[in-house]
Amino acid sequence: MTHWIRFKHENVEDFGSVEGEVITIFEGNLFSNPVATQKTLPLAEVKVLTPCQPGKVVALWNNSKSLAEKNNQAAPEEPLYFLKAPNTFLASGETIQKPESYDGRVLYEGELGVVIGKTCKNVPEQDAAGVILGYTCVNDVTALQLIEKDPSFPQWTRAKGFDSFCPIGPVIATGLDPNTLSIKAMLNGRERQNYSVSDMFFAPEALVSLISRDMTLYPGDIISCGTGPGALPMKPGSTIDVVIDGIGTLSNTYE
Amino acid sequence: MTHWIRFKHENVEDFGSVEGEVITIFEGNLFSNPVATQKTLPLAEVKVLTPCQPGKVVALWNNSKSLAEKNNQAAPEEPLYFLKAPNTFLASGETIQKPESYDGRVLYEGELGVVIGKTCKNVPEQDAAGVILGYTCVNDVTALQLIEKDPSFPQWTRAKGFDSFCPIGPVIATGLDPNTLSIKAMLNGRERQNYSVSDMFFAPEALVSLISRDMTLYPGDIISCGTGPGALPMKPGSTIDVVIDGIGTLSNTYE
Repeated sequence: MTHWIRFKHENVEDFGSVEGEVITIFEGNLFSNPVATQKTLPLAEVKVLTPCQPGKVVALWNNSKSLAEKNNQAAPEEPLYFLKAPNTFLASGETIQKPESYDGRVLYEGELGVVIGKTCKNVPEQDAAGVILGYTCVNDVTALQLIEKDPSFPQWTRAKGFDSFCPIGPVIATGLDPNTLSIKAMLNGRERQNYSVSDMFFAPEALVSLISRDMTLYPGDIISCGTGPGALPMKPGSTIDVVIDGIGTLSNTYE
Repeated sequence: MTHWIRFKHENVEDFGSVEGEVITIFEGNLFSNPVATQKTLPLAEVKVLTPCQPGKVVALWNNSKSLAEKNNQAAPEEPLYFLKAPNTFLASGETIQKPESYDGRVLYEGELGVVIGKTCKNVPEQDAAGVILGYTCVNDVTALQLIEKDPSFPQWTRAKGFDSFCPIGPVIATGLDPNTLSIKAMLNGRERQNYSVSDMFFAPEALVSLISRDMTLYPGDIISCGTGPGALPMKPGSTIDVVIDGIGTLSNTYE
């Protein structure tokens, strides 16, 4: 198991593997034959960046059985998804910003992110593990009251698309069995979400297979698996942590 | 007025300005101080690429007054938009592919693309021209019958998100007054769309201003202004050209 991290140190962006409090710097490309150097750095001395730079984040709606039951939603026949653009990406430790152009409720949504490792299309489910590099934590931040603001057109893209609305990280963990994972969200230290991958209508490998039928997936692309029950509004000054054992804690403040 | 083009020649990707049938190769970055070289190439000898590589394409729904009237849709209070991801981008001359996972109607939608030139946020409308590099043609290809397939969640992202569903190009034209432009679409040589920017609820500079309130726009990002009346299904073997005088012809086949 490796925990891949991307970081900035003395104004240079680099990547490496992190073990405990020490980063081993790697050279080359994370997605094709990364090579370890002899150089290490204390984790405390770097600025953590998003662990990769996705060309797209495909994010799921209605992928939680328990949330669907609570909201009286039917089970989806296929994955239902939207996109989050690069302006939304935010590293662990950075601040989620309240939009200037919106005054309503802003929710955290703790989610599991599947990080694609290889360019792929039409991947059979049994081969999906081979195109997945690893897993990360995602916070699918949502300006809730925009979604239904215009009755003619649900504004999913806009509600999910403000700057800083997609914290990702802190690392990409390899070697995990995704079906054993649980996703927690802690608002100001209090557990508010705690659901398992077994609660998903479409588990990570099924999502990769089905979404790759629609669109080519590229190294660094992320599929964010949708949230479970317990997403709540944040207040300015809140701290929101998405915690997945085996990956780590994606910690952000909201202002 | 400059027509910026990106191209591949002898397996090297380059960019330059095109005049008539001749490309002048430039060095550096299109968005920050590009420098002309003495080298030229005949346009006929290169493979045309998309004129830029957007981090995001923000595409409008319901931005045509005449189409809204025809469809009995209310005027939108704000821009209503979705995103098209990089897997959709396609150069002029390339083939739009029928999705393998969808058998319904696939529409062309001829649109004007606004190419952002500078990183910007909260741009006042009167300053929008200063952050726009230029204009290009966009074909917002759409798998129509997916949008309403699931009654609980309109699948705009998916319907617009298949590989090759966003032809862009052939050039980025600078120095145009966007408010004088007309957008035509020619299906197998027959004019099927012809509408002007004055038919838009939100004109290009207003779109840049309003959308930049929601999200930071980066150099190379494109706002595709939404289509007018006359979008129709394509049949395999169709040729679809989006033509904007002052920019050029974005020509693709559909298989």
